[in-house]
Amino acid sequence: MDNSGTVADHDGLSAIFDRISAIGAHSGQGVTRLAASAEDGAARAIFAEWMTRGGARMAEDAVGNQFACFDWAGENAPWVFAGSHLDTQPRGGRFDGTLGVLSAGCAALGLQAEKQAGGFKSARNLAVVNWTNEEGARYQPSLTGSAVFSGALPLGEALALRDGAGISLGDALAGIGIVGETGSVPPRPEAYVELHVEQGRTLTEAGCRVGTVEGTWAARKMTVRWIGRAAHTGPTPMADRCDALLAAALGIAAFEAVMAEHYPRLHRSAARLVVEPNSPNVVVERATVWFELRGLDISELDRAGKAVLTAFETAAVDTGTRLEVSADALRAPAGMDGGLVAIVDHTARLCGFEPLAMRSVAGHDAVALQNSGIPSALIFIPSVDGIAHHPDELTLAEDMQAGLTVLTAVLRHLAEGGYGNGQAR
Amino acid sequence: MDNSGTVADHDGLSAIFDRISAIGAHSGQGVTRLAASAEDGAARAIFAEWMTRGGARMAEDAVGNQFACFDWAGENAPWVFAGSHLDTQPRGGRFDGTLGVLSAGCAALGLQAEKQAGGFKSARNLAVVNWTNEEGARYQPSLTGSAVFSGALPLGEALALRDGAGISLGDALAGIGIVGETGSVPPRPEAYVELHVEQGRTLTEAGCRVGTVEGTWAARKMTVRWIGRAAHTGPTPMADRCDALLAAALGIAAFEAVMAEHYPRLHRSAARLVVEPNSPNVVVERATVWFELRGLDISELDRAGKAVLTAFETAAVDTGTRLEVSADALRAPAGMDGGLVAIVDHTARLCGFEPLAMRSVAGHDAVALQNSGIPSALIFIPSVDGIAHHPDELTLAEDMQAGLTVLTAVLRHLAEGGYGNGQAR
Repeated sequence: MDNSGTVADHDGLSAIFDRISAIGAHSGQGVTRLAASAEDGAARAIFAEWMTRGGARMAEDAVGNQFACFDWAGENAPWVFAGSHLDTQPRGGRFDGTLGVLSAGCAALGLQAEKQAGGFKSARNLAVVNWTNEEGARYQPSLTGSAVFSGALPLGEALALRDGAGISLGDALAGIGIVGETGSVPPRPEAYVELHVEQGRTLTEAGCRVGTVEGTWAARKMTVRWIGRAAHTGPTPMADRCDALLAAALGIAAFEAVMAEHYPRLHRSAARLVVEPNSPNVVVERATVWFELRGLDISELDRAGKAVLTAFETAAVDTGTRLEVSADALRAPAGMDGGLVAIVDHTARLCGFEPLAMRSVAGHDAVALQNSGIPSALIFIPSVDGIAHHPDELTLAEDMQAGLTVLTAVLRHLAEGGYGNGQAR
Repeated sequence: MDNSGTVADHDGLSAIFDRISAIGAHSGQGVTRLAASAEDGAARAIFAEWMTRGGARMAEDAVGNQFACFDWAGENAPWVFAGSHLDTQPRGGRFDGTLGVLSAGCAALGLQAEKQAGGFKSARNLAVVNWTNEEGARYQPSLTGSAVFSGALPLGEALALRDGAGISLGDALAGIGIVGETGSVPPRPEAYVELHVEQGRTLTEAGCRVGTVEGTWAARKMTVRWIGRAAHTGPTPMADRCDALLAAALGIAAFEAVMAEHYPRLHRSAARLVVEPNSPNVVVERATVWFELRGLDISELDRAGKAVLTAFETAAVDTGTRLEVSADALRAPAGMDGGLVAIVDHTARLCGFEPLAMRSVAGHDAVALQNSGIPSALIFIPSVDGIAHHPDELTLAEDMQAGLTVLTAVLRHLAEGGYGNGQAR
């Protein structure tokens, strides 16, 4: 394994990072660049223009995943992918996702320059990828683009997803000019590598600058609806009311109580709630809540899920409403690809870092791909104070530099065939 | 007092009622005709065309209140108003408000025909009024148009109100062609009469077809916001979270518990909740809840309000969030105008009904006007099963007929000067 060659171009990364970060940014409000929005479209255009100028050939699949292709090794050679996503949460941070796409772009441009200078010989083609709707803020489920690419989610289902305003993903993509595949989209890659900010404090507390993610927590995501009956909030006798918002409030309160008492190790949340009709003068007819439970142990998630469903049913009975579980999906804990984890670990050490083997609580595109059989690696760098999905999200410049250095070295190694031919396994 | 003259034109009422009820109607979903929406615009146009064809002169003030004017008694004569509102709740009923406007229109047309036939001599001008945004579904506070007309709410404040999408009432009105006063808007009337469906079961349970509303309950309307901190719902350690939706859920649950235990006579509701950013993967940063308490006794509302504010503060402390009370308004119990109540009671008896003296739990335009010094009367007719703000809202044809008969007789009496000159007081 060779760690020589160009120094990772951190100044180039800063420049493009600042350009993309300005798209959807509002002072003090972070960045709002929801999937398939006008802002997402603007960021995609800048990314494509930047990559094209650097010598890449752009392709896009029908769900809007962007591929900046470097056809270094010819039509029949295997591919290596690196990337992440450019969409954000509402009022989200600048680093989540964006850093992974742009670091991969910088690494590719560096390797391209190195290759042209004769510094390395590539046995693989490389694509820098921007996956569509990773966040799941506008369209649920999240990880949409990577799930479609890897075959876990049918394209038709993805395009039919609807946002809170009823706009389908297909229509939203068409609204930013994406109406089908363009260019020649590369095949399933031999390996995928993603650099991402940790969004927790584990690296900082361990004093490490680089994390090699060995696997993820499991997650159980439940969408639960209470159905009551609309009525006037004034004259309707209290005994006649079936109040779905009261049911949801009791459900959320019971969820917290059950989890805090019996499952304190699990992470839990109720973060989205849709109320209908949501008029101050109409008793709520329907309240839909998105719950998440996350942990390492599937059997614990299973027990916790049963317990909270019982609590939800009690909330329905106590309010005269009816409970409907409209989604209840388990994401099994993923183990990332062992061979790639070893390469990342070894490469990070060659680059002078002491990497921390760790697990990811959150899902990422690398996890979606790995779960669908594409060998994937996930590299973490620190988040200041662990702040994520918030305008104050921050990763320090020296940590970005560290991440870019390791990513570039890993991609050089993979492009040389360091994984596919088995020499590093 | 004379009850002779034309029979109230129930067939005419059915025809126009069916026409207006079709605007914003969706099968099984009731009627959605939010204030200043395209549907509201369409209903207004039909109302104006119908009244104009019947001989009225239309005028509109700057907040969009429509006045169908019958200038029977000359420029210097006092005015009598009758009406209600054409806006609805989302998925609301057909009768609420609409019946009052159209019954007043039918009564006016009947009196106009009677006058032309020499059957009565009017000493007053009459206007049939459609008040803007009575419901408060799209813009809070409710009763907007009547409050502006009567001077309780400055026009500028009303036009600056914003809906959930951030659209101002002024812009929404401009969107349906209302950009300022048109025609000559009549002055403050001598008396205002409103026919409305009861939205409760009191009349049915008493076996009465007509109710004379002597006054209303008081209402306390509180808008309360919990402010937490956005964070990733996955990796963020549970101890680091400040979850505004959890706070709101605990607040709503505590509100119900406190009210049910200590203030069971009051009507209570939490029917609107705005969650930000409302993404499944972001711990909620801001949750805003609209609470209402209604009762007859202001001191009880005062004590209950204090108790629930304490509970809201506890919810904030328990979740590490911050409580903000963004609105806390008391609507005092109104007594309707005694002279007009007596006229309605007497007239109803002359028409062959045994009217029930009752109180209104809900606010209505008549209450807003009465509270601002315009003598007002409110006549109730039964709602089947008391269902209101729901697609199943229903008032039977014979009850509509009864209401129209009494309203017409009351308006004939008032137009003859039966209130303003004191002969009936």
